[in-house]
Amino acid sequence: MVKRTSVWDTGCPVARALDVIGDWWSLLIIRDAFDGIRRFTEFQNSLGIAKGMLAARLKGLTEQGIFELGPASDGSAYREYSLTEKGRGLFLIIVALRQWGEDYLYAPGELHSVLVERSSGSLVGRLELRGGHGHPLDWRQTEVRKIANA
Amino acid sequence: MVKRTSVWDTGCPVARALDVIGDWWSLLIIRDAFDGIRRFTEFQNSLGIAKGMLAARLKGLTEQGIFELGPASDGSAYREYSLTEKGRGLFLIIVALRQWGEDYLYAPGELHSVLVERSSGSLVGRLELRGGHGHPLDWRQTEVRKIANA
Repeated sequence: MVKRTSVWDTGCPVARALDVIGDWWSLLIIRDAFDGIRRFTEFQNSLGIAKGMLAARLKGLTEQGIFELGPASDGSAYREYSLTEKGRGLFLIIVALRQWGEDYLYAPGELHSVLVERSSGSLVGRLELRGGHGHPLDWRQTEVRKIANA
Repeated sequence: MVKRTSVWDTGCPVARALDVIGDWWSLLIIRDAFDGIRRFTEFQNSLGIAKGMLAARLKGLTEQGIFELGPASDGSAYREYSLTEKGRGLFLIIVALRQWGEDYLYAPGELHSVLVERSSGSLVGRLELRGGHGHPLDWRQTEVRKIANA
């Protein structure tokens, strides 16, 4: 969660995003949150992460406005971490990571979890790059326009 | 690049993807490659990263089949890193990071680079989650189906 100022200030949204969530544990914590995990001990059990490391990541992500900490939904004394709107905005990053992992990191026949539409059980579609009019784009058809001080 | 075996083996493509490219520097190197950077010194100048760290990252990403190292395209003695098909598959992860960064990490009026369609100069469309029949999906309408040993 340390801001690497030289990169943060470049005017590149990719670099800035990575400055906030570009930590392996943070993205796994966020993945778990999308799977419905909300409590400290649940994150700990799911990830097998040391308490101190988990506490630091959750604190940082809360300070960044990605999680908010509130009372438990069941009225118990537990405190729960829930994704804010900003945190929920990370879903497509998780989906993009998943789809690339599915494409390139499994041997034929090797099992992995899948993301499905809950109502039908059918697989979620692939993310696609499209132009402003909805036409499909290949990455070679795009370019980054940098700002003057970037 | 160290494989965290306990997570790699969970059957979660997100975890496996992060195991391979879930390093802040690696994703910035890959971003630069999509911007056309191919040579060691160009990466170094762009990122301001220590030589040893850059060398280790490029070596790891090459071993993972994300880059391939070959002769310079201009016939000079330089060696160039180019993205493989597996590496080019990472583009939507970079785009997803960019769009989230644009949405949440800039103050109103603060300048940042933009991703455009080269031919028209118009902004690339937003990534969208869709169902198998192309209908828009909210993350709440999805769920992860885990495999038995995940």
